[in-house]
Amino acid sequence: MSRGADSRAGGPVVVLAGGTGGAKLARGMLDAVAAPEQLAVVVNTGDDVEIYGAHVSPDPDLVAYWLADRIDPRGWGLAGDTFHVMDGLRELGVDVWFNLGDRDLAVGIERARRLAAGARLTEAIAALTRALGIGAQVLPMADEPVRTHVAARGRTWPFQEFMIVNGGAGPIEGVELRGIEAARPTPEVLAAIERAGAIVIGPSNPLVSIGPILAVPGMREALRAAAAPVVAVSPIVGGAVVKGPTAAFMAWAGQPLSAAGVAALYGDVLDGIVADEPLPDGLDLPVHVTDLMMPDAAGRARLARETLAFARALAS
Amino acid sequence: MSRGADSRAGGPVVVLAGGTGGAKLARGMLDAVAAPEQLAVVVNTGDDVEIYGAHVSPDPDLVAYWLADRIDPRGWGLAGDTFHVMDGLRELGVDVWFNLGDRDLAVGIERARRLAAGARLTEAIAALTRALGIGAQVLPMADEPVRTHVAARGRTWPFQEFMIVNGGAGPIEGVELRGIEAARPTPEVLAAIERAGAIVIGPSNPLVSIGPILAVPGMREALRAAAAPVVAVSPIVGGAVVKGPTAAFMAWAGQPLSAAGVAALYGDVLDGIVADEPLPDGLDLPVHVTDLMMPDAAGRARLARETLAFARALAS
Repeated sequence: MSRGADSRAGGPVVVLAGGTGGAKLARGMLDAVAAPEQLAVVVNTGDDVEIYGAHVSPDPDLVAYWLADRIDPRGWGLAGDTFHVMDGLRELGVDVWFNLGDRDLAVGIERARRLAAGARLTEAIAALTRALGIGAQVLPMADEPVRTHVAARGRTWPFQEFMIVNGGAGPIEGVELRGIEAARPTPEVLAAIERAGAIVIGPSNPLVSIGPILAVPGMREALRAAAAPVVAVSPIVGGAVVKGPTAAFMAWAGQPLSAAGVAALYGDVLDGIVADEPLPDGLDLPVHVTDLMMPDAAGRARLARETLAFARALAS
Repeated sequence: MSRGADSRAGGPVVVLAGGTGGAKLARGMLDAVAAPEQLAVVVNTGDDVEIYGAHVSPDPDLVAYWLADRIDPRGWGLAGDTFHVMDGLRELGVDVWFNLGDRDLAVGIERARRLAAGARLTEAIAALTRALGIGAQVLPMADEPVRTHVAARGRTWPFQEFMIVNGGAGPIEGVELRGIEAARPTPEVLAAIERAGAIVIGPSNPLVSIGPILAVPGMREALRAAAAPVVAVSPIVGGAVVKGPTAAFMAWAGQPLSAAGVAALYGDVLDGIVADEPLPDGLDLPVHVTDLMMPDAAGRARLARETLAFARALAS
């Protein structure tokens, strides 16, 4: 939030999201805003992968499927999807390390077709989310390709291979965001941040989900210049992580597995943080302490509303 | 067949095939040869299409699915296949003019992956047919891309669009084999032709199924130089065509819809023809007159065996 911010927290909301936590909070935010068009989710594309002739965007699709109420209970992919293409590939002897449902694959195939036809990633994803009936904006952090690589156990893995083939196992030895220097926040992202009444960093992995978004050159500057307050929802619950390999990444970053550690990583873009315990003495950052679990729709909406109210209070 | 041909008609068999007729005869030939490895099918690739991130080879796959006893009763694609990716694409607003089953798509995706990794089309198809348990060889006519285009009704259509979007409707105004000048018979095709005991041109469309194979520079020369007799099975039955738009193409080529018209198109590569009626007087070409219908496995094997016996007699 820039100095002299006006009180716009009741207006449009931007959520920064990567994995499941951010996607769930984004879904809760749909219930907290006046209309779907008041929500823009800026999503990590560092996990994108070109495979099976498709352009797969795991995090944007995760957010989209949550927003469309189409997420499968398994936690990824489209509800009730089948896996016949993967079965077919296995019959052909392919090592199917990256599992993708048939309709999920259709999304990736159509995105690849649009990209090959010259569309920006933002445009391709907008067409897909419109077709899925999503009124909110799902905005890739950049149109330029960024590919997160993780060094661990003596190898450097593209992110999805690190997660799936390597099982997300640490210790982490490095994180590399290939292509990040050439990436820029899109006009759509900059416009959403500029007009936002509140900006919420979702409870996703601070290093490899939110990290790539903040590392896009110009993104931190845009967030700092925003009229709206920027608040993070900590992904750390009871000193542990709800889902995913965040602990190993926090250890690599030399930060404690706590809201204070998360706040240290986000640094001066933050105007406040939502956490499940008070910050340590000496940390000069507004904090809203609450239950961070989102077990169901009511829980997601509650955390979203509390977060918005907290942001509003900071803006006033 | 070259002069001085030895009597090898009992040996390996080569079938040239395009659409359904050629594929069915190839399947019958599997029952007529001593072992699957004695059969090589040289297949038209002019219908190939890159779509949905896949490299689809309609004729090679048609032949492969027939040889694997996996052809669906609808006449194309894999038996019992589902169409969930196409359903997904339709939900995304894609005009799905080219329908492809999920496992059929997996074949095309894996072929595209192998080609992108540097494999020749011959190698990619060999890997796929091996995985499907096919002992016979399915040999693309060339590794270089050839794309058949058809001029009709004031437009020039890529072949699959002519067939599907345009419904195969004539009159035909032209046939263009884009890329044919740079294509060459593969080493595998040349070796199969050289070692063959009999070479059979299957009952497929002479212009757009067999035509592209014969138009590969060097193919007619290889067939003429072969020790084995070359016999065609006419796709014309009772003055009509069993399946597909052959009549319109024969009319465009200025040939009668008869075995004589087919023989005229194949010209001097032919040593004999299998037809359902005698050739007109004055045509100096050995003919075997028989029932050309292949209603079931027994019918396919019968026609294959009769064709081989006819070829053997020509070679002796």
